[in-house]
Order: sequence, then C-alpha cells, then structure tokens
Amino acid sequence: MAVNLPILDPEKLFPVPGIELGYAQAGIKKAGRKDLLLMTLSAKSQVAGVFTLNRFCAAPVQICKAHLLSQPTIRAIVINTGNANAGTGDQGLSDARTSCHAVAELLQIRDDQVLPFSTGVILEPLPIQKIVDALPTAKQNLKAHAWFDAANTIMTTDTLPKAYSQKKVIEGFEITMTGISKGAGMIHPNMATMLGFIGTDAGVSKSVLHQLTQEVADASFNAITIDGDTSTNDSFIVIASGQSGLMIDSKTSPGFLELKQMLLDVALQLAQMIVRDGEGATKFMTIRVAGGKTLEECRLVGEAIAHSPLVKTAFYANDPNLGRILAAIGYAGITDLDVSGVQLYLGDVWVAQNGGRHPDYQEADGQRVMQEAEILIRVELGRGSVERTMWTCDFSHEYVSINADYRS
Amino acid sequence: MAVNLPILDPEKLFPVPGIELGYAQAGIKKAGRKDLLLMTLSAKSQVAGVFTLNRFCAAPVQICKAHLLSQPTIRAIVINTGNANAGTGDQGLSDARTSCHAVAELLQIRDDQVLPFSTGVILEPLPIQKIVDALPTAKQNLKAHAWFDAANTIMTTDTLPKAYSQKKVIEGFEITMTGISKGAGMIHPNMATMLGFIGTDAGVSKSVLHQLTQEVADASFNAITIDGDTSTNDSFIVIASGQSGLMIDSKTSPGFLELKQMLLDVALQLAQMIVRDGEGATKFMTIRVAGGKTLEECRLVGEAIAHSPLVKTAFYANDPNLGRILAAIGYAGITDLDVSGVQLYLGDVWVAQNGGRHPDYQEADGQRVMQEAEILIRVELGRGSVERTMWTCDFSHEYVSINADYRS
Repeated sequence: MAVNLPILDPEKLFPVPGIELGYAQAGIKKAGRKDLLLMTLSAKSQVAGVFTLNRFCAAPVQICKAHLLSQPTIRAIVINTGNANAGTGDQGLSDARTSCHAVAELLQIRDDQVLPFSTGVILEPLPIQKIVDALPTAKQNLKAHAWFDAANTIMTTDTLPKAYSQKKVIEGFEITMTGISKGAGMIHPNMATMLGFIGTDAGVSKSVLHQLTQEVADASFNAITIDGDTSTNDSFIVIASGQSGLMIDSKTSPGFLELKQMLLDVALQLAQMIVRDGEGATKFMTIRVAGGKTLEECRLVGEAIAHSPLVKTAFYANDPNLGRILAAIGYAGITDLDVSGVQLYLGDVWVAQNGGRHPDYQEADGQRVMQEAEILIRVELGRGSVERTMWTCDFSHEYVSINADYRS
Repeated sequence: MAVNLPILDPEKLFPVPGIELGYAQAGIKKAGRKDLLLMTLSAKSQVAGVFTLNRFCAAPVQICKAHLLSQPTIRAIVINTGNANAGTGDQGLSDARTSCHAVAELLQIRDDQVLPFSTGVILEPLPIQKIVDALPTAKQNLKAHAWFDAANTIMTTDTLPKAYSQKKVIEGFEITMTGISKGAGMIHPNMATMLGFIGTDAGVSKSVLHQLTQEVADASFNAITIDGDTSTNDSFIVIASGQSGLMIDSKTSPGFLELKQMLLDVALQLAQMIVRDGEGATKFMTIRVAGGKTLEECRLVGEAIAHSPLVKTAFYANDPNLGRILAAIGYAGITDLDVSGVQLYLGDVWVAQNGGRHPDYQEADGQRVMQEAEILIRVELGRGSVERTMWTCDFSHEYVSINADYRS
C-alpha cells in the first residue's frame, strides 16, 4: 500500500569509504529473515546521534547515549530487528552490554566503541544468545557495497526497504552520502520506532557533526508522523568517516553549507520514505502551516491535523469533510487564536476564508484534490511570518489490520 | 458494535417537572429522521453549561455562552442534528440567532432566553429555513414524558440512544434527574462532538449550579475519549427547574452533597454510554492512573494511553502487546518520570514491575484479560498520591469504515 515509494536500485546506493556492513539471520524474527546488521567504521570516523525522548527509552538507546558521551571513537554499530529490548529493565541493559561486548571481542575493539540498536516488540526479553551466535556470520559478510542488504535487514513492518544515496563535489572533493531508514508505525516526532543511519566520507568534527545532526533531524525525522506514537527506540545516527579529504570543523569551514544541504536532502528523502510506507497508507500528505508567531505554534497546528484520526480517515475515503481540519486547528492549543484570520487551502483550492467556508468553494473542487495520491494542505494562521512543514499519511482499514495482527 | 450499552426502557426515563420536550423531522438529516428537538423550561429554572475549548467553537456555542452570561432566565433549548453550524463564519452566527428568534416568537419569550445547539457536519451552511419551518411541529409535540424521543432525536453516528434517569429522596423531597447525551466520534476531553443535557427538579442557585456543572463535567464528560478529536460543538448543560421543593443555594445547604453525587452518577452514566457506543468500539476500557504528583500528570498519562492508536488496535485484536502501554506512559510528557518506579496492571495481572516485565508475568494471563469486553488498565507512577480515572474504547476496522463513510 506504499505511496509512490521508489523501488531501490542496489547499484545506485553508493558505498561510503570507511564504512562496511554485514548482515546475518539470527532467528529473532521468522527463520530465514535477515535480522542482524553489523556496521564497522574506520578509525577516523565521527559519529553523532539524536534519540527518542520517550522516558521508557530502550536499553540500547541508554547504552548508545553513554558510549557517545564517554568515547569519541565509535568503531562499530550493531542492530537487531524483531525485538526492541525496551521495557526490559536491568536484564535489558545487561543484554545490550553483552551484545556490545560480543562485537568488541570479534573486532578487537573496546566495548564502549560499539553502539547497539534494537527495534521490534517491546516488553519481551532480548534473545541475546541468538545475536551473539550470529555475529560471526555478520562479520564474515562485511563489505562496503551492502547498503541494500542493510536496508532490508533493519525492516520491521516496512513493506519495502528504504535507502537513499547521493554523490556531490564539495570544495573539489567528491563526497558520498548514503543512508538507510526503517519504520512504518509508532512514528511521531521526537521520534518514532524509527531508525535512520546516514554515512558520509566527508570529515566533520565531533561538535559540528552533533549540531548538524540535531538541526537536520528537526527538519526531517522530527517532522513526520504516522500515528502519533513516539517509540522507545528511535535513533538517527550520522557517521562521517572523513575519507574523502574534505574536512569541516566549524560552521564557517568552506563547504559547510553544501554539506548541510546534502545531509538535509538525504535525511528528508529517508524520512519521507517512512511516511510513504506508513502502515496502511494510501495518501502522502504535506502539511504546511504558515503565518504563525512561533515555530512551536506552527508545529502544534501541523501535528493536530496530522494526528487527527478523523482527518486521516476522511483523506483515506477521498471525502472532503474539511471541517475536520478546522476543528483540529481549533483544538491544537493556540489559546488566543483568532479564527477569523485563518485560511485553509487544499492543493490549489481555497477552502476556508477568514475562518469560514470560502464563498466560491465547491465540494467538487475539494473532491478533485482529495483523489490525488499526494496532497498539500496549507494553513495560513494570519498571526506572523513563521512557517513549518510536516508530512503524514492517511489512516486506513489496513492500518488497523497491521497493528491488530502485528505479532501474530 | 456497542459494548454493553443498555437498551433504554422509555418507562424508566422519568419526566422532570418543569421540563417539556418536543421533536420534529426537519429534513436536515435523511428524510423521516427525527433531527430537531425543542425543550421548554419553567419560569424558575436555572441553567448552567460547560462548552468546548476548541477555538473554532461553533456559532451556536458562541450564542449559548452569550445568552447564559447576559440572561439569568433561560426558557428554551433548541437542538438540531445533521449540521454543526461550525466553520460557518458570520452567516453561521446569523443563522443561530435566527433559530433563537423563531423559537422566541413561537413561545412568546425573548430571543436571549433561548439556547441553540447544533451537531453534525462542520463547514456546511445550516439549512436554517428547514429548522424554522419545523419548529411549530416540535412545539405541538411538547410533553414531559418525552426523554426517550429526545435521546433519539439528538443522535448522529450513535448506534443507540443514550439516556439515564434517577429518583432519590433528598432532605425529604423526591428529586428526579433525567439526562440524555449523544456522541460517538470526535470524542475527547474538553470536550467532544458531545452533547449532554441533564434536567432535575431540584432547585439550585445559579452560582452553585455553575460550579457543580464544572466539577461534574471534569470527572465525567471530560474524562472520556474515543479518538482524541475535540469537537467544535461540545456542550454539557444542567437544568434545575426547582419544582421539587428542595433548594440548594450554597455548598453548605442541606442536601448539597447528595445532589452533587446524584448529578455525578447521572453524568458518569451518560458519559460512559458515549464510550460504550464509541465508533466501532468492541471494548470498554477504564484507565486508572495512580501514584502521581498532580492530577495533571495523571491526566497526561491516561490520555496518552487512551489516544494511542497502537494500544487501541492491540486491544481490538485481543493482543497483549503491552509494551505499547509502557511506550505511551513514556511519551506522555512527564519529563522527570523515573520509569523504575512504574507498575502496570491489566485487570488482576501484574504486567510490569519497576519499569520492566514482571518476572511472573505470562502472556497467557494478559491474553485472558484482553478477551474481556470490559478491561481495567492500572498504572502506578510511584511519585505521589494523586489519581485520575478515564474511560475509552478500542480502535477497530469499523471505526475507519464509519469515519470514511460518514457523509456518504
């Protein structure tokens, strides 16, 4: 049911010098399913991450944060699907540490040079022995040209693997940037059951990389929502291997802006792919809220529209029951909103003018836009000059089926 | 699909002295459907109301608020279904005023002694002429013993009419209290596409009635959610006709506590009926969050669980995927929540202990509770001694069908 989600061409996912990937079938998910991914990073790599704000943040997320704080040289990443290792208490932490230790032994590095990630069912003990047993196979499979397999390995309810790759010349250096992402439900800003990894051979200092990662996450992975559920495991990781020759160590370094734009492009593609593959999605909706006083109030309105089951089911049904959008704007939380300043557009159709139905609005016009697979909703708040865009999908019978049957 | 929603016995809905009700078929909804209700209130009646916080609050809500502020003696209430008169701008306000004026002429009262209510589709012009034309029929039908017809008249996507009635002796006076409610989608605290009207022949002063209505609404209609969408039209109205002889004019009046409890009982029944008839509902879920520092944080956690599409679809599927509840607790917004103090119970089963899976928890036990039609979820936050209860339902294929096809 994915909406215009591109079918990946493995040949167009460029290897990133300094990064190798290897998968295994650990048997955590169904037998015969790739479910364990190992990534190794060359010695000069810098790594930055943005993680879920969920207080029940998963054991591996806690370990990741600690390792990123304590240790500047991350050399490996290990990811399992099929089990989130969340809501698993002390045993979960111990299991996540065990997986780091097993990777470290295998690669002859220190435990805190490994970042662990898990995604899947919450509240189930991690089958750690299966992971430990499968790691040698993952190591044997390590190679640079394996991003397609990697994208397949980290899938859960995703219907298609998600990856994106770019090459660009910046300041005379050819820069490669390749990323993978996963996630289709429990998707919500800050963040989702979403994993995103982007690797580049640009060189970026730790502090700049950290700041870049935050900023780019906010405009991409933190601007998508499928069901409003913020997961326990969301992580977005950027790896800069530094093998290209380009080095960015401050915001004034030549090439900084080009690299930032490249990172934003790749992150946006990966984030939007998650929405396009939203559980049961039949529509891809862009919500642009403009005319706000603050970014925060634009975010509130965008999220209220994007989360409303009533709005989402109306889009699923091609039913221009657009009063539901006005209702969502009204309860979004701007307590001093003067609705007589609000305009609503669906595609090129002006639906509501100054808070009421536009006199020329015809339902047939709304209907025409609703039938498209990609729909732009524009809200003008008439309060200021700030705007924010977010992306979401509709809400279908299929969403309910997928989530009712997730574990069966 | 309603969950244990009682079939009404018209004989058990007691007339309330001082209140008469009359319906008509105005043709706003389908032909041959009751869709217009007129209520008349005797001269001594006091009326108090609680209204939606949605900034796109409907035209009739704005008029109601103004009339309640300006005029102590409300004598009539007019309610139409099929059209919400919301998102309708100045024309909507004018139409709501026209309906009050038509009622006033018919009953020989002043325009501002009439409260208007509308529920139905948003963003469509109100067919005011149909309402004006049908009012004389509604007036002809006025009688005291008509709460069952009234409950039927105000339905939208409700599968069954909702009403509840009690008689009690308070301080030697026999007090009657009868209420009706409607709503099945766009149901969310503060409030919903929900209308609730309770009439009693107790006498209550205006200021006490106002305070009572607020407090009771908070523990009943503001503690239910179906889909998290706060509608533009929610209203909860309490009418005290004062014909019984009992008079409550302060919180220390004899009978105050009994009357408050009676009002809470009736309001809770009416509110829970809305959840039981939640669009597509197959389960009735009570969520009790205890051990909080504040009522507000208990509310946040309760709402996060009650709104999570992932939690709601899991309950629909009888699937004890209970990690989804932990995830919802984690993103509810208590930023300093120490999850190691959190306990989760499903019915009598201890699922999560100190933030992790309870060592004795067996999935079969969770499964057993999930199969019930009425389920209690208990969360113990371990931070304080405040608790709050709310009610919700599950999320089914049928919800999507109902809301995808609402207008067709």
